[in-house]
This record gives sequence, C-alpha cells and structure tokens, in this order.
Amino acid sequence: MMTKTNSAPGKATLLIYSPDRSGLVAAVTDFISVNRGNILYLEQHVDRHEGIFFMRVEWDLTDFLIPQEKIGEYFQTLYAQQYEMTFRLYFSDYRPRMAVFVSKMSHCLFDILARYTAGEWKVDLPVIISNHEDLRWVADKFGIEYYVFDMKKGQKEEVEAAQMALLKEKKIDFIVLARYMQIISENFIKSYPNRIINIHHSFLPAFVGAKPYHAAYERGVKIIGATSHYVTTELDAGPIIEQDVTRITHKNSVEDLIQKGKDLEKIVLSRAIENHINRRILVYKNKTVVFS
Amino acid sequence: MMTKTNSAPGKATLLIYSPDRSGLVAAVTDFISVNRGNILYLEQHVDRHEGIFFMRVEWDLTDFLIPQEKIGEYFQTLYAQQYEMTFRLYFSDYRPRMAVFVSKMSHCLFDILARYTAGEWKVDLPVIISNHEDLRWVADKFGIEYYVFDMKKGQKEEVEAAQMALLKEKKIDFIVLARYMQIISENFIKSYPNRIINIHHSFLPAFVGAKPYHAAYERGVKIIGATSHYVTTELDAGPIIEQDVTRITHKNSVEDLIQKGKDLEKIVLSRAIENHINRRILVYKNKTVVFS
Amino acid sequence: MMTKTNSAPGKATLLIYSPDRSGLVAAVTDFISVNRGNILYLEQHVDRHEGIFFMRVEWDLTDFLIPQEKIGEYFQTLYAQQYEMTFRLYFSDYRPRMAVFVSKMSHCLFDILARYTAGEWKVDLPVIISNHEDLRWVADKFGIEYYVFDMKKGQKEEVEAAQMALLKEKKIDFIVLARYMQIISENFIKSYPNRIINIHHSFLPAFVGAKPYHAAYERGVKIIGATSHYVTTELDAGPIIEQDVTRITHKNSVEDLIQKGKDLEKIVLSRAIENHINRRILVYKNKTVVFS
Amino acid sequence: MMTKTNSAPGKATLLIYSPDRSGLVAAVTDFISVNRGNILYLEQHVDRHEGIFFMRVEWDLTDFLIPQEKIGEYFQTLYAQQYEMTFRLYFSDYRPRMAVFVSKMSHCLFDILARYTAGEWKVDLPVIISNHEDLRWVADKFGIEYYVFDMKKGQKEEVEAAQMALLKEKKIDFIVLARYMQIISENFIKSYPNRIINIHHSFLPAFVGAKPYHAAYERGVKIIGATSHYVTTELDAGPIIEQDVTRITHKNSVEDLIQKGKDLEKIVLSRAIENHINRRILVYKNKTVVFS
Repeated sequence: MMTKTNSAPGKATLLIYSPDRSGLVAAVTDFISVNRGNILYLEQHVDRHEGIFFMRVEWDLTDFLIPQEKIGEYFQTLYAQQYEMTFRLYFSDYRPRMAVFVSKMSHCLFDILARYTAGEWKVDLPVIISNHEDLRWVADKFGIEYYVFDMKKGQKEEVEAAQMALLKEKKIDFIVLARYMQIISENFIKSYPNRIINIHHSFLPAFVGAKPYHAAYERGVKIIGATSHYVTTELDAGPIIEQDVTRITHKNSVEDLIQKGKDLEKIVLSRAIENHINRRILVYKNKTVVFS
Repeated sequence: MMTKTNSAPGKATLLIYSPDRSGLVAAVTDFISVNRGNILYLEQHVDRHEGIFFMRVEWDLTDFLIPQEKIGEYFQTLYAQQYEMTFRLYFSDYRPRMAVFVSKMSHCLFDILARYTAGEWKVDLPVIISNHEDLRWVADKFGIEYYVFDMKKGQKEEVEAAQMALLKEKKIDFIVLARYMQIISENFIKSYPNRIINIHHSFLPAFVGAKPYHAAYERGVKIIGATSHYVTTELDAGPIIEQDVTRITHKNSVEDLIQKGKDLEKIVLSRAIENHINRRILVYKNKTVVFS
Repeated sequence: MMTKTNSAPGKATLLIYSPDRSGLVAAVTDFISVNRGNILYLEQHVDRHEGIFFMRVEWDLTDFLIPQEKIGEYFQTLYAQQYEMTFRLYFSDYRPRMAVFVSKMSHCLFDILARYTAGEWKVDLPVIISNHEDLRWVADKFGIEYYVFDMKKGQKEEVEAAQMALLKEKKIDFIVLARYMQIISENFIKSYPNRIINIHHSFLPAFVGAKPYHAAYERGVKIIGATSHYVTTELDAGPIIEQDVTRITHKNSVEDLIQKGKDLEKIVLSRAIENHINRRILVYKNKTVVFS
Repeated sequence: MMTKTNSAPGKATLLIYSPDRSGLVAAVTDFISVNRGNILYLEQHVDRHEGIFFMRVEWDLTDFLIPQEKIGEYFQTLYAQQYEMTFRLYFSDYRPRMAVFVSKMSHCLFDILARYTAGEWKVDLPVIISNHEDLRWVADKFGIEYYVFDMKKGQKEEVEAAQMALLKEKKIDFIVLARYMQIISENFIKSYPNRIINIHHSFLPAFVGAKPYHAAYERGVKIIGATSHYVTTELDAGPIIEQDVTRITHKNSVEDLIQKGKDLEKIVLSRAIENHINRRILVYKNKTVVFS
C-alpha cells in the first residue's frame, strides 16, 4: 500500500493566484475544456480586501491533448504571464515524500503512523528525525528509519546542515514537526518555504511560545485549542492551516489540559498534513486559502 | 432600512443543476464573460453518486450586455436547453417577502425580529401568523401585522385557505415556521415547494415528531441538537438546511434541555433563513446543496 | 412575571472557599442536616495547585431550624471562622437587580430583553444606560427606562459619578456591559467587584483591545470566539466566565466575522449573566469556578 | 509502565446510588471523616425525575482506620442497608484488565494501543480478539496476544463459549468492541453487564444498525457523530457513555463521511474507556451518570 505505481488515469491539480480581474475563471476553464480535459473539481475565491484571485482546479488527464510534461510550460506561456498568475501544478502519479521530526512525545507520531500504515494518505514516509532516542522503538515497530541528531549547544548550524543533507538524500518534499520541541533556524526554514508544518499546542495567537497549557491554566480560559501552521522565521506566527478547540472547566488541572490537548494536537496536525498532501492549500501574505 | 430601493449596481445570481458532463463551468462562465459580466462569486459541486452538477454564480450587472429582463430567456435558449439545466435566476434589486408563523414560544421570533430590525437581512416581513394570541404583544412592539387563525377541529381546510389567501395578498415568497406547532396539510405545502422553512427541536433524524427533548432525555443522549429543513409532506423528513448541537450531561433535566435547546433553535433557524434569503440553497432529491 | 413575590418554599445557596483541609464537606453538610435542611444540590472542588477548597450547596429552608436572617451569623460563628472560610449566602426570595450598558449595537441587548420578557431569568432590569441615543427605541419598545450619559472628554469622572448615583438609586446589584464600547475607570470598577460582566468579541487572551475581528482577520485564524468576563482594572484581563467559538474560512471577510461573531457574543454573554444570576460563580485569584 | 506495583498511598473510590432522602451526603462523608479518611473528590447528583441519589467519592487511605479488605463490609452493614444504597467500591492498587475485540479496521485499535503503550491509562491489555487475521500484524507490533475466532454460521454458541473461556483465563474485567462488526449473543452480554463498551459510528439514536454513514449520506444531514455505549441485548440501545460530532457538507461523499468518522470514533471510544477505567460511570435504568 505504499508503492509508487499508479495505474489509474492521472489527474492534474492547478493552484493559482493572481491580481483579480474579469475573465480569469473563463480563461482557465477554457484552457482545460478546449484541450479535452474534464474538470473534476473547481473552486475559486476572491479576496476583495487584497484584490487577489485564488483558484484550485482538478482535471482528468485521460484525453488531455497536451502531454503531461508540457502542461506547465503551455499554461505559463498562454495564460500565466498574460494574467500575472503565480501557479503550482501537481500530478496524481507523483507521491510526495514526508519527513517527521519528533522529540519525546508519541501521540502525534502514532496518529501519523496509524494513518500512514492504513494507507489513508498518498504519501511516502522514509525517515523520522529526532533529538532524542526516546521514540526509536516506535519507528522500529513500524519499520521506518530513525535518526537522532543530538542538539548540543553552539553546534546548531552543523546539526542542521547534517539534517538538511539527510533530507536531500531522502528526497523529502515536506517536513512535519510532530511536537518537535526545537527552534529551527532561519536558514533551514527558508529552504522549505511553506513546506514545514508545525503543531502548536494552543489556540494561536493566544499563548505563543513555551508551555501554552500552563499559560492557559493560569489565565483561566474555558476552552483550549491547537493550531497547525507553516513554519516561518517568526516563532508561532506562520500561516495557520487548521485549528480546533475543546472545552475545559475549573476542575481541570494543567495535567488534564496537557492530556486533553493531545487529542486536539494529533487530529489538527493530521488534518493539516492531509490538506497539504492533497494540494488544497495556497499561502498568500502569511494567510492560507484551504480549498474544501 | 426596510425600503425596497437599491441604488447600488445590481448583481445577478444563477443557481443551476444538470446532468454532469464536460464543459459546463466553461459554458456558464463564457456566457457571463462574453457579455461583459464580472464574476463576483462562483462555486460548483459535482455529486458523483448521482451524476449531477451544481453551480452557483454571481456577477455584476453594471456593464452586462443583456438587459436584466432578458437574461433568463437568453440563458434558457442558449445554454439551459442544450445542457439540460434546471436553473433559477435572482436579482439583487428584488427584496424577498417572508411570513413568520408562530405559536406560543417567543425565542425564535425575537431572534428573527432583532435581526430584521437591525437590517441584517435583505428581506421584508409584512406579516406574522399564529394560532394563538400569545405573541401579539411582540408583533405590536415591532409594528408588524399579527393575524390569529384559530385551529378548530375539522376546519383545517378552511383555515388554511384563509391563510393562503392572506399570504397571496401580502405577496409572500417564503414562510418561516418559528416553532409553529401545527401540522400543515399537503395542499398548503405543495403551494410553497422548498419555500417553507421549519425548525425542529432535535438532531434529525433522531427524535422525529412531538416532544423530542423528552425523548432525548429518556434515551440519555450526551448531545442535543436542532435542525432547520424545508417542509415536505412527510413529517420532519424534508431536506435539511442546517443543524447544530450542544453538550448536555446527566445533571440536565428535561427543562434544562428545553432551555438549552432554545439557543440552538433560534440560531439554527436564523442561519437557514439567511442562506435562503441569500439564494445559497439548491434542493435536489430531498437533500440541499448549501453554497458557502 | 417580573414581580418580587415568591410564595414557593425558599431555598438558601452557600458559596464557600477556604484553605483545603480534611472534613470540610462533612462539616458543611452536617450544619445543614443537623438543622433539618434538605440538601438539594452540592458540588465541591479542590484546586490542588492553590490548596483551596470550593463549594456550592443549596438547601430547602422549609423545615430549617435557624431563621433565615440568622443563618449567615450562625454559619460565620460556628464554621467559617474555625475553617477560615470566605462565604456568600443567597436566598431564593431575593431577586437581583441588573443594569445594562449599551452603545450602538443592538444584538446583545435584544437577546437579553427577549429572555427577560419571556421570564427566563429571575432578575429585575430597571434601567438601560448608554452613551448614545441609538438604542432608545429598543428600550422604549420594552418599556424600560433609558438614560444617555454623553461621554465628553475630560468629564469622565463627573459622568461616572452621575452613573453611579443612578445605579445606587435604582438599587442595582450587578452591571452588564452589552457591547458598551467605553473604558470604565478604576474607581467605578472597584465599586462593583466581580459584579460587572463584559462581553469581549474575541477568544481571550487572543486579540485584547479594540477591533479584535480585524486582528483575527489579519492573523488568518480559522476559528473566532467571544469571551465574557468580570471587569477588572486591567483591560480585558478579568476572570473569564464563559467562552465559545465558531469556525470561519478564508472566504469570510471582516464583515462576515463581525456578523458571525454577533451570535457568539449574545449567547456567551447571556450564559454568563444566567450563571451570575443563579449564583453559580466563585472568583478566586482572577479565575472563576463555575459550578454546574 | 504496565506493572501492577503501586507504592503510592492507596485511595478508595465509592460509587453509590439509592432512593433520594435527606442526609445521604452527610452520612457518607461522616463515614469517611470519622475514620480519618481525607476526601479527595466528591460529586453527587439527584435525579429528581426518578427520585434517585447518585454519588462518587474518593478518599485517601493512608490514615484510614478500617483495613482495606473490610471497608466494603463495614459500609454495607453501617450505611448501605440502612439507606437502601447500591454501591461499588474500588481501590487504586488494582489495575483493571481489558480485552479488545476488533474486525478489519485499525483506527480505533491504534488509538487504544498508542495510549496504552504511552502509559496514559491505568489498565492491562493482555489480549486482542478478532474474527479475522487482518490486524494480527498490529498486535504483533505491540507484542500483544492476538486470537482469531472464525465466525462460521451455526457455530456462534461454541465460538462464544471459547471466547468466554479465554476471557476468564486472562482474568478480563471489561471488553472493548473497537469496531468489531459482530452481534454478540444475549448470554455473552449478560455475563458482562455494563462491562462491554461499544463504539457505534453514528449519533445515536439516529442511524441504528448497519451502514450508518450511508444512511446519514442518504438523509443529507449536516453533522455526523459517533456514540460509545455499554452493550445491552437490544442492538445499539444500551446506556450512552459519550458522543461527539463533526460538521459535513454537501461536498462530502460517503467515503469522506467514513474517513471523517474514524477520527470521531477513535476519540469517542477512548474517552469512554478512560471514564470506565477511572470508575467515573454509574448506570441506572439504561442511562449513565458520568462524573467529571
């Protein structure tokens, strides 16, 4: 269930944004229809505040007249430059490759592995990376390579260089920080723009930084949350992909919050990963458009 | 704030469904673009199970080449018959007219009137109809005509005939049953297909019929709900527009459920009304497509 | 339905907190049982982090041996001083008196008035206070006195003095700020400790201060919230009573957030008011214990 | 982390129900206090509709005067018979033993095993039972014995006899049906009264029986749910322990519902198991009291 072959008739997914103007939807649907592509999905959105048009369209490639490897070039030449479109093009016969970074807590990792081994996601997971040995047994159970990079002070640059070399070797497309409790440097982050997904254990922007459950307890909130977002150079301030919340009461201790929060974290992180894998997310000016 | 004048440049809304086939989005967007309409909103959905295509599109009429009163005819001739489309066309310069039916409970009525008088909805509300005098004082407070039709046994046909005459006189487009505790006859319902919105005080299809909170209490559920739906001839079985729920515990008595349920009912009903007014709902085979 | 007579056999409600120690529940239940009070409700909570015991107990006064006006004194002498208890004692035959402060938005006020006139709450509402004339018509509809205090610069002290005189004259027990967009001074707040309930239109502590929906929109959150809290001298930082949230998407404009937020605000504020009226809230160190 | 030793000072948990009358709380708290037990937790509830009193109390046994093995007898003699109390007594030094029944789907099993191996629950899990080989690899990964009982027609009685023998041999206290798609016979169910926890993949009582997601899709609901309950001889009609829901839209296919439902099912089932393990549930007349 984790092989790369895909005998089904392929489909293409196009994610576009551009300055808003008349005729954009008609132009894109025309490009597909004229070339005998059957549109399977189309959703568009106009952000009137920013004056930006967003679109996601999926079509069946079975009878499409343009060869797969030429579609990007043709779309660029015929439409994108004319309409000032920024676009990304994906094909269903490519299986993205994901690396998971963990520290000591297992709940998010288990949730990811349970979905992965059940074949829920069209993704490959060749490597788990950690700063501790603690979860090696989990990786072993699931037969996934596990690398430990010890985070000694003053050597962050070297450690990250080694991590990035490994990611390159494994041909990793995107990274999931599954409660990896380390700050990643600017250089690393910029190598994976909008391709590092973090789970923060609060309802951002409330309780940025360390120990958000302790802070939530201190403040006496009646609801706690979790937030998955793309990592940017500003801590916990990247584009939000997904959030969810659960009720608490005065009866709940900090330990209860941590425990209840785990269920939020794993579900919210997994939903974000799924949206990323399915090419549903566009990022514009530190906000996401998540197509349904 | 309840006048009919609308000096803003008008817009048109088209709701379409048809058998699914290639080129539908392209055809509709082409119709609008070629005639210089600027698309403000477009959402489409394909129900692959039924093989049906659904679409909602809104466009600015400012520079549109086809006169407003001819758009329907042109669309029918040029597209709808070719693609077997069923469609409805609305214009923003028409203000729909709503009648509200009530019995003895005031919470839904107050919520509707609060939104109405605050100008939240683009709707007219010329008449409130009831089978009891109880809420006349509310209608009086808000200066809306209030008619009581006494429901004596054996006279239902006559009473409903009188109600329908009144609705016709007031040029009512759609009806809201705001906890109106009467069964409406088939003849009446068929005169307003998908134009009578009811609020049922349970999470349908659980607890159909009378006293759903008592039934929920007896069953020991941990969550209660409310459901707004279009009325069809089968009791509480019409197309669902909106639902919401709230948690309860063993500590809650039937009276607590009734009380907590009121907040659900009024919010769920008002959301359904709003979606109806904004032409966001398509009904197909007893299910709704509610565009966002 | 808004009269003060109460012919039902009265009940007493005792709210207690004290340093935690052995035997507290036994002591309090003993006091009631020995004097022939029938306990109708009892809930206790121990905050192990702070070492504080909290309790709410309600009992039927029908056969209670101690006269109502002596209960407080007896409890103080026999138990409270021995166990270092802080307590408040309420009787069901007293109807608390509430003042509502508003500015220009009507949604919270309508929700309060709808519940009030339907007799949902055991409270009196003799006066609505505003800094604008805008909502006088609402007060007039419901036959409640409406006072406007114009907030001219440099005269805040005088205006608040006049407001407090009016509140005193009307024998107001607690104040509800129903989207009253003014900062209240320290002197005023300290006159009503834990007796001024505010609704803030965000999920606190996110988006403190002005224009929280604009800030939420800018940050790109996927869920918005509302928070009711007791007002303290630090802005939007008082003890939280109740919170709730609703999902939004990238499709929602700031105006949509404001609109969706209104339903949250009115429900969250009304729940807080109800808990306050029913004597369910204890405040300790800027956090609330809200008994169920 | 799964050993049975417990060097912490033990605590006792008492779950009681009885006809409601005056003095019950005082009597129980007196029993504990007089014998030098320190009450750690107390919650009571009176069902006024049924006239039944419910209580859960936990106390520290460190200085308790009655030896652990005598507490039940003393409580029975001194209080339970006098007040017609039905009670259950648990001690924190006993670790309950759980069996998990599965069929082919892995999501609930993974969630249980992830929590179990992370030490979140104070429980032993010596055996997984199935009617298929499909999930043996999961059990193997986690080093738990896995037994397959083939369900051939006409042999149900024998198969269940063998299952019950195994459960007895493994000293199983309670059973979790983690999407085990078999009907269990009356005889089996009666051997484990209120000790078989099932997860049903709908918001009960809506969509009882097979294929609830298909039924929900057909009905066009806007919210789906999952329900954990104790198994009784009437299908999907046992006392509800926990429910939760999630929103769906017209865009979601049956497959989407199944997928989204999995997250509900696993979380709702795990919450029910946790409440059961922590002795928080009392069953009375087919309804649960779930203490917080």
